[in-house]
Amino acid sequence: MSDIIQPRVLKGFRDFLPDAEMERRDLTERLEKVFRTFGFVPIDTPALEYAEILLGKGGGETDKQVYRFRDHGDRDVALRFDLTVPFARFMAEHAGELYLPFKRYHIAKVWRGENTQRGRYREFTQCDFDVVGADCASSDFETIQVIADSMRALGVEDFRIRINHRGVFNRFLASAGAESASSDILRIVDKLEKAGTEEVRAQLAAAAGEGTADRVLDFTRKEKDFPETLAKITAAAGGDNPDSARLGEVFECARAAGISDRLVLDPSITRGLDYYTGVVFETSLEALPEIGSVCSGGRYNELASLYTRQNLPGVGAAIGLDRLLAALEALGRSNRRSGNTRVLIFHVEDGFLPRYWELARELRAAGIPCEVYPENRKLSQQFAYAERKSVPFGIFLGAAESARGVLAVKNLATRESREYPSVREAAADLAGGSA
Amino acid sequence: MSDIIQPRVLKGFRDFLPDAEMERRDLTERLEKVFRTFGFVPIDTPALEYAEILLGKGGGETDKQVYRFRDHGDRDVALRFDLTVPFARFMAEHAGELYLPFKRYHIAKVWRGENTQRGRYREFTQCDFDVVGADCASSDFETIQVIADSMRALGVEDFRIRINHRGVFNRFLASAGAESASSDILRIVDKLEKAGTEEVRAQLAAAAGEGTADRVLDFTRKEKDFPETLAKITAAAGGDNPDSARLGEVFECARAAGISDRLVLDPSITRGLDYYTGVVFETSLEALPEIGSVCSGGRYNELASLYTRQNLPGVGAAIGLDRLLAALEALGRSNRRSGNTRVLIFHVEDGFLPRYWELARELRAAGIPCEVYPENRKLSQQFAYAERKSVPFGIFLGAAESARGVLAVKNLATRESREYPSVREAAADLAGGSA
Repeated sequence: MSDIIQPRVLKGFRDFLPDAEMERRDLTERLEKVFRTFGFVPIDTPALEYAEILLGKGGGETDKQVYRFRDHGDRDVALRFDLTVPFARFMAEHAGELYLPFKRYHIAKVWRGENTQRGRYREFTQCDFDVVGADCASSDFETIQVIADSMRALGVEDFRIRINHRGVFNRFLASAGAESASSDILRIVDKLEKAGTEEVRAQLAAAAGEGTADRVLDFTRKEKDFPETLAKITAAAGGDNPDSARLGEVFECARAAGISDRLVLDPSITRGLDYYTGVVFETSLEALPEIGSVCSGGRYNELASLYTRQNLPGVGAAIGLDRLLAALEALGRSNRRSGNTRVLIFHVEDGFLPRYWELARELRAAGIPCEVYPENRKLSQQFAYAERKSVPFGIFLGAAESARGVLAVKNLATRESREYPSVREAAADLAGGSA
Repeated sequence: MSDIIQPRVLKGFRDFLPDAEMERRDLTERLEKVFRTFGFVPIDTPALEYAEILLGKGGGETDKQVYRFRDHGDRDVALRFDLTVPFARFMAEHAGELYLPFKRYHIAKVWRGENTQRGRYREFTQCDFDVVGADCASSDFETIQVIADSMRALGVEDFRIRINHRGVFNRFLASAGAESASSDILRIVDKLEKAGTEEVRAQLAAAAGEGTADRVLDFTRKEKDFPETLAKITAAAGGDNPDSARLGEVFECARAAGISDRLVLDPSITRGLDYYTGVVFETSLEALPEIGSVCSGGRYNELASLYTRQNLPGVGAAIGLDRLLAALEALGRSNRRSGNTRVLIFHVEDGFLPRYWELARELRAAGIPCEVYPENRKLSQQFAYAERKSVPFGIFLGAAESARGVLAVKNLATRESREYPSVREAAADLAGGSA
């Protein structure tokens, strides 16, 4: 056995077998369809880029997780670890060929050499959508509307999009005299759900003092609805200001579009990253709060400042496909199936192969996905194949049927059979669902 | 300017801007639809694998082109350079979870550090489909039928699938006493189209002598149709044999399925690779012979012998997406477009944003992809945006229209305007194409 190489994949990497891959494609097709109804257009970028582009001139903390190496030309290259950095480079490089506002989506693999012990994968698919070149309530709201329509396209109705505004939070911190600790405070508050109030209070106290800790925790509490919470945080931020006004506009759009019941103003949402400057949001499934946010994002001031002096504000979100697939499975909403084939043409007579392929052509012309079992094998083997691929119907055409000028069609679930003079008569039943 | 990183991609790598990416997705969607009507199912495998898996224990000639490096765990890893080797590993690893015959397709990126001077890319998409676990005429023919349906799905009618059988060729070489040079001869004949007859004759003579060179060139000439060519090569191969019979069966299936006029028996087709053992084929477009084969493949005996002792014969083909896209463009059949948006809701009145989003929701509910221009900017800027994305209609709703209870709809190509009381009345015109 020594000359056989053991077939295996790298730790943290996965094969997708047909059932899982079909489900994944079904999911991304539904999402793409939503993106397109809003005028988002797809782009793609290389998997491999200059390390300098992906990591900046210094490198940095992400560095350890990045697959980085020297290529044949001794270039310092790396596999992309997200879709945001390549998008920034893309916008800077193609500024002259693009228009603003630019609305793009990008669904592609990324790679991170992360610790796999926490169930993380080293290769996974990201799904990002962004509006770049507009800093206004309409684009902020559009992101929320796309999330809402995406959830519904996946059959999930019971979701909440929790929104906050980093600007209002910072105004509050300024009026509380805690401006200098703002970056730390935002990061600590981001842990509220996971770490709990007491732990967060302790960390806040350590970072900014007991009094500030209590005021911050008070600020992060929701009131009974969006307008009341907005009134409260606006007051805490020192009164009317453009950021609160922005939240109000977004809420008016949500009301007009009939999704205000899905939109929650939650001042505890901060999204840890320094990156965000305006609205931030997370999406939770009411039936599965423990799974965390399935779609998160926010507004940023400068997408591509590493690569261009052009001002490119934007807003966008990333859908966590793996998490969402797990959620759909837990909710019994997953679309896992073994194939699309409606009819298996059983191979029951030698010499009939051309007839079978003629029949297959007629079925496909009628829009019915079908297969010819390639060899005249034992019937049990052919039935097992049909069952394995969940094929609902079998067609039997041998010397006997041929002599009588009929096709025998069997419903493979009920085992009922029926004869038809030709494909034309059978097509409606085969496509429809019952024989 | 020194703190700006120059935005650029690696040589041989490409960004796909929206028009190109939409076209590419349209192409792969059409192909996938065809694969599915035959019961092929999708799989996916990791981009990164153990180098040993991809290159075998020794490495080999491909080695120089492979992106290979040591990962964080000091593993010897490489980016996949084709989809065949990972598929072989996949079949060996998942034998217990799969069924046979297994019909899969796989559309994914691969990487090769090739010389880019010949217009080659270092990152490109492959599209493979294979039937594994059946060695019979039905699966050979199925591959041909899938190619034919794929071409038609792309709007290409005038194609030819040129087929040959390596077994018949080898029988002929045996009967000509040139068996020992068979591998060289197959590789030399493969160059016929590019190098021309004289060059090939010289190389054949050097490899196997003048007499053999002439006999081989004679063998490779087509007769007037498939049956006559089959009769000629069968005779040259020493008379009736199972490989010729297989070609005959494939032709009968093509006749029954109505595609025999697209199938050419061409004994000059050898596909250089040692890998193939049975039928081999190439697909040419009659209008663009210079572009070469857009879909090639053949039958192999042992898919996964590096990784398993299980016998896995198969047949399959690879569609050259880049070449096909170039061909479709040359034929004026490409589907390049700037977006899917049917309607741009112009932003013409402050305070109307919620109304615009309400309108957008109504349009989407009617199945009409639409966009809200996010800010109340100059009309010329909004028109330019619509033009850039080839949006056919604009809706104008300001204080005047609102007072009269109408929507003004403008056909952005003809500049004609028409008013409607609501989206419901306008929907048919907006979806249909004329205002």
